[in-house]
Amino acid sequence: MANIAKKVSWSGRGEDRGERTPLLNGAEDGKYNRKDIVRSRPKEIPHNEKLLSLKFESLDYDNSENQLFLEEERRMSHMGFRCLEIRRWVICGLIGFFTGLIACMIDIAVESLAGYKYFVVKQNIDKFTELGGLSISLILWAVFNSAFVMVGAIAVAFIEPIAAGSGIPQIKCYLNGVKIPRVVRLKTLVVKVFGVICSVAGGLAVGKEGPMIHSGAVVAAGVSQGRSTSLKKDFKMFEYFRRDTEKRDFVSAGAAAGVSAAFGAPVGGVLFSLEEGASFWNQMLTWRIFFASMVSSFTLNFFLSIYHNKAGELSSPGLINFGRFDSDTVQYNLYEIPLFIIMGALGGMLGALFNLLNNWLTIFRIRYVHRPCLQVMEAMLVAAVTATVSFTLIYFSNDCQPLGPDHTEEYPLQLFCADGEYNSMATAFFNTPERSVRSLFHNPPGTYDPVTLGIFTLAYFLLAVWTYGLTVSAGVFIPSLLIGAAWGRLFGILLSVIASSQSIWADPGKYALMGAAAQLGGIVRMTLSLTVILVEATGNVTYGFPIMLVLMTAKIVGDYFVEGLYDLHIKLQSVPFLHWEAPATSHWLTAREVMSSPVTCFNRVEKVGTIVDVLSNTSTNHNGFPVVTHTTGHDEPGKICGLILRSQLIVLLKHKVFVERASSRLIQRKLQLKDFRDAYPRFPPIQSIHVSQDERECMMDLTEFMNPTPYTVPQETSLPRVFKLFRALGLRHLVVVDNENRVVGLVTRKDLARYHMGKDGLEELHLAQM
Amino acid sequence: MANIAKKVSWSGRGEDRGERTPLLNGAEDGKYNRKDIVRSRPKEIPHNEKLLSLKFESLDYDNSENQLFLEEERRMSHMGFRCLEIRRWVICGLIGFFTGLIACMIDIAVESLAGYKYFVVKQNIDKFTELGGLSISLILWAVFNSAFVMVGAIAVAFIEPIAAGSGIPQIKCYLNGVKIPRVVRLKTLVVKVFGVICSVAGGLAVGKEGPMIHSGAVVAAGVSQGRSTSLKKDFKMFEYFRRDTEKRDFVSAGAAAGVSAAFGAPVGGVLFSLEEGASFWNQMLTWRIFFASMVSSFTLNFFLSIYHNKAGELSSPGLINFGRFDSDTVQYNLYEIPLFIIMGALGGMLGALFNLLNNWLTIFRIRYVHRPCLQVMEAMLVAAVTATVSFTLIYFSNDCQPLGPDHTEEYPLQLFCADGEYNSMATAFFNTPERSVRSLFHNPPGTYDPVTLGIFTLAYFLLAVWTYGLTVSAGVFIPSLLIGAAWGRLFGILLSVIASSQSIWADPGKYALMGAAAQLGGIVRMTLSLTVILVEATGNVTYGFPIMLVLMTAKIVGDYFVEGLYDLHIKLQSVPFLHWEAPATSHWLTAREVMSSPVTCFNRVEKVGTIVDVLSNTSTNHNGFPVVTHTTGHDEPGKICGLILRSQLIVLLKHKVFVERASSRLIQRKLQLKDFRDAYPRFPPIQSIHVSQDERECMMDLTEFMNPTPYTVPQETSLPRVFKLFRALGLRHLVVVDNENRVVGLVTRKDLARYHMGKDGLEELHLAQM
Repeated sequence: MANIAKKVSWSGRGEDRGERTPLLNGAEDGKYNRKDIVRSRPKEIPHNEKLLSLKFESLDYDNSENQLFLEEERRMSHMGFRCLEIRRWVICGLIGFFTGLIACMIDIAVESLAGYKYFVVKQNIDKFTELGGLSISLILWAVFNSAFVMVGAIAVAFIEPIAAGSGIPQIKCYLNGVKIPRVVRLKTLVVKVFGVICSVAGGLAVGKEGPMIHSGAVVAAGVSQGRSTSLKKDFKMFEYFRRDTEKRDFVSAGAAAGVSAAFGAPVGGVLFSLEEGASFWNQMLTWRIFFASMVSSFTLNFFLSIYHNKAGELSSPGLINFGRFDSDTVQYNLYEIPLFIIMGALGGMLGALFNLLNNWLTIFRIRYVHRPCLQVMEAMLVAAVTATVSFTLIYFSNDCQPLGPDHTEEYPLQLFCADGEYNSMATAFFNTPERSVRSLFHNPPGTYDPVTLGIFTLAYFLLAVWTYGLTVSAGVFIPSLLIGAAWGRLFGILLSVIASSQSIWADPGKYALMGAAAQLGGIVRMTLSLTVILVEATGNVTYGFPIMLVLMTAKIVGDYFVEGLYDLHIKLQSVPFLHWEAPATSHWLTAREVMSSPVTCFNRVEKVGTIVDVLSNTSTNHNGFPVVTHTTGHDEPGKICGLILRSQLIVLLKHKVFVERASSRLIQRKLQLKDFRDAYPRFPPIQSIHVSQDERECMMDLTEFMNPTPYTVPQETSLPRVFKLFRALGLRHLVVVDNENRVVGLVTRKDLARYHMGKDGLEELHLAQM
Repeated sequence: MANIAKKVSWSGRGEDRGERTPLLNGAEDGKYNRKDIVRSRPKEIPHNEKLLSLKFESLDYDNSENQLFLEEERRMSHMGFRCLEIRRWVICGLIGFFTGLIACMIDIAVESLAGYKYFVVKQNIDKFTELGGLSISLILWAVFNSAFVMVGAIAVAFIEPIAAGSGIPQIKCYLNGVKIPRVVRLKTLVVKVFGVICSVAGGLAVGKEGPMIHSGAVVAAGVSQGRSTSLKKDFKMFEYFRRDTEKRDFVSAGAAAGVSAAFGAPVGGVLFSLEEGASFWNQMLTWRIFFASMVSSFTLNFFLSIYHNKAGELSSPGLINFGRFDSDTVQYNLYEIPLFIIMGALGGMLGALFNLLNNWLTIFRIRYVHRPCLQVMEAMLVAAVTATVSFTLIYFSNDCQPLGPDHTEEYPLQLFCADGEYNSMATAFFNTPERSVRSLFHNPPGTYDPVTLGIFTLAYFLLAVWTYGLTVSAGVFIPSLLIGAAWGRLFGILLSVIASSQSIWADPGKYALMGAAAQLGGIVRMTLSLTVILVEATGNVTYGFPIMLVLMTAKIVGDYFVEGLYDLHIKLQSVPFLHWEAPATSHWLTAREVMSSPVTCFNRVEKVGTIVDVLSNTSTNHNGFPVVTHTTGHDEPGKICGLILRSQLIVLLKHKVFVERASSRLIQRKLQLKDFRDAYPRFPPIQSIHVSQDERECMMDLTEFMNPTPYTVPQETSLPRVFKLFRALGLRHLVVVDNENRVVGLVTRKDLARYHMGKDGLEELHLAQM
């Protein structure tokens, strides 16, 4: 892969707006004096997929157990902890409720808008079919699509670029412990919801399911904090949960609630959250996540049933409804299993092809399509092309099917078909993708012509490849399912042609389901959670085993060629993502080799000036500082006695907790954990804190605020061992010490993430401040 | 709870047979000279539930990354690791296959034996109903039952006591990291399978599902090691996996495969394994577990379909078949949800009652029923009483139901009913429990009289309480489901009486299902995995949400009164079981307070005599020894430089790896990892190793064999922090050091397990060498 100029990234156009994400942990504060900010477009940095960005920070999943924290915990009674636990359950309930509500809103908005669009276009087509002049209909359709997409794309590109795409890679990173700037903000949620309504209504080859996961995560991050920093509204609730540890747990519940609402799959949601995010499995946490999922699905179900005037019937647990596979037709035979495996392999290959094409396209986009207006224009172009391709295919298709009395098509297009018939290609194209999937699963045998399906598969495949990665909020689940359902049904039809005698072949819907699973599995490479999601979404357990086989095969075959789509996108953003285990052949590396050194340390009682200078040093930009007993010089490192974070130091400086002012302690309030929580998560940057020349000479006693028992490892520890400790406990800083307990280095996420398995064994990525 | 004499424990009658479990890690080697073994019954130690046994050791889930290990890992190529990974998958496939096969065997054996029994008894009853003299039938039935149960109980009580019960508490402990002696041995498996066949065929109120989980775990432990120590057969396969780390992972796959085969619930199996056992969630491991589950369910399905002459139909994925809930009748309404919650609460209370009664009974048994012959007699008594109670209830029941054309009862008893009718009580009692559950779920409304159900519930509840904990292999799942299904159906019937107009009430089967879930949840207190198991076993997703609600409510209500059944039994055995988190109010404890000290340390180069003396000291009986640079005296501890295990020292002593013999290294083979693996898991006891007086003066260099990078924590670390590290990484020894890196203490499992939440806050358990 050649070096390419990298301009667009998840943190968006930070540079243009004067944001200095790496330093400020996503803070936006324009009040302070910034001489060193380059307002002009910065020099283009060559991008290479072998790079690792230093821009992304880790979450502090490890509690800083300093004296303040311990005092608070020790003060708390047994009852206090029980109340906390109840509050956690309440929060999870709220997360589920609001996520379900958002899902409901999206569903109703999309259905209404798309319904209106298809109604108008169908009227128009019906009118012009006899008169001639269908090109006017085409233009109408294309304009409709482009207009919707334009509005959505503008919102995303100009207001909040992080809301683009499905958000699943971002949430995956967040749950992995990477702080992606602005990913769980209220603004992102608003833009995301608005954007996804526009893009689905705009007829793009996208789904509204993926974004639900992101939405759920944002809801969780908001609700659990009991305030909105963007709205400057603090409800004074849930203050205990204002730290990364708790927040990340809630975000995993939110992601699960999102999956649950999207697919009506509460268990699938829990498994998704665990498969993609968790490292340490905690039973109580899992149950809370499960609860959030259940509430979310139930809320959606409840409100949709009211909307559909069937209050209390609870028949739509998810955004997508795959329809019911009746139990009498649901069966498979032993000799079909090899066929399913073949489909899985096919899905793996097609998925890999999808990912490869999309990967190239994304690199192209990173290089050339980085201005917001260009991005909006591309999105509009795709919308217009989608309409045109659909229209052309419908126009030239002569696959007419009789319109049965119980037809499921809401907008059957007659076009040039005889009366009482409808165009079969239009079922697939002139519909929201969810409906098309359902038709492919359930329409009786003979509904689709093989040629129609073949052409549709090809066209939709290319459209979906082009669409994913556009600057619109949209998911890839439904397009994948649709592509797979189409070729799966084709596969089923071909089989029934070959073995025409067997009645079992007569159900192409089964093969459509397997194809959908294979294609989706080939693209996103999930197994356990996806199996459960599909089982729950189809409401059928019998197909669980074949679906599992198909997904496993798809994953194995797909992994042979290229990684999963989400992983590719994560890689393209150079995120220091930690996998489950260290690379297998990394035992020859030790902590001494991977650690960063020398380490900037502080003394237990340190001069304010030194601290300010270190924090202001933009070239190093460290976030965690070992505290040592005494540093006599740079040559001899001091003995470790604690670890303090940049954010803690900032709060200390802001409150001017200096030894010299201790005498006036009586009038000065003692610093409490609350002060740290109030500043969380957007700690002010060091530049915003004014420290006078006199104050620079003061001393700060860190003893009370540092974490006195940071995890340490000896220098000889092997990389896998370091990795395991780091990953299992969700650490941000791991101090490497010699046998005298003197600090010799610091291991952070980037030190571990840069070693990965390449084609020829272990590879080391380069680090780049992007 | 008063102190009671404790005689029977999971490790069985170890003392009688001269086994010294704590010291030997379960080794049985009678060749060495043992002067200190008390052949007579040892003095009775008072048992108290506030005790913690020192008998149980931890598994070494943390790899000892010594030089040998690192050398081997570094030698291995990328391809080598890939082969290992493939081998792991193969093993999981084999685990699934053999587990499925065993399940199939159990099923066929039970069905045949029980079928034969019911056939003979029915013949007899039919004969004597008209003639009079039904007491002969009763005696015949009781004798049949007692005979079966006697055979099973003798096998368990005299051959392998650890095979008693469902085995779930034991597997739970094993997955928690506790080494339960003999729990995963071949002999245990054989006795377990034989015992469960006998006890189910003997008509006890037991199920064959629980023991499958234990069976799967044994299969896993056996297959993954590629040899059987009991059979002295080494297949020279899978030698790499001969250590606790790998074995425990495979055992979790085996447990999942067992659940999967028992209930036809592969996803439920995975979740069970994770909910009960896992601490660190690893994606690849989870997928392998899932694979094993799937294969297991498939194997069972395949062979059973052949057995039932319907090859290839794959309709019985599990041992239990709840029958199909048809999708047209499957629905629930919003206003039913409060009813479900009430049922959940009821289930929680009944479950708590069950657990309390059983707990008292178990304490009684521990005190008085500890001789094998007494145990066998009790089991026979229960079998006879079960038959008598059943017979009496059937006899006095006058609930006759017409025998429909498609009746599901295989042995409909007419008794005093009119021709063409059958005794409804007999459906519930004169049947294997699995069939009774199915009847309760699916028989049409009106099949059961409320009085019949009420009496049945009461009788079966008491029988089940009495039965669980007998010295037979049997599970509690099915009896719980049966009790719950009975009162659930009763609940449904009562509801339909109250609101007779609503047709939705007309399905008592739904309430039977909810009752079953509530009762089972109230007893075992699982939520997520049980929801999925029930969903998979019923083949129906729609009821997922109400089942989840019911289970959650049952758990919350039940936990208010008493712990779950398995946890109670674990507690009664004084197992140092680690929960998910440290007690909430334990922040005021630090490592300094919880650690054991002083610690027996070794020098890097240590005198053989010292090592032998330390290892032979039965009063301390340590298993892990920090290695320090030099110990000048007892007052000043040395700097830590490694950790070595008893098992490693034993192997070193056996191979006489002394410094003085290093000169003859050319002729002496260098010790390899293989030597350690060959000795695993039954390392010989120190007494079996002969060390001459000359050799005692030799020196041993531990550098190459010790783990040079053990995890350490400073003394000030809070208990929750220590706990988290210990639990997340599955440690066995955690060294506590001062700020000079000198060893000051050692934290092991028992140090952490003894702090637990009591009624009045944090309690500390006492330690007892039992």
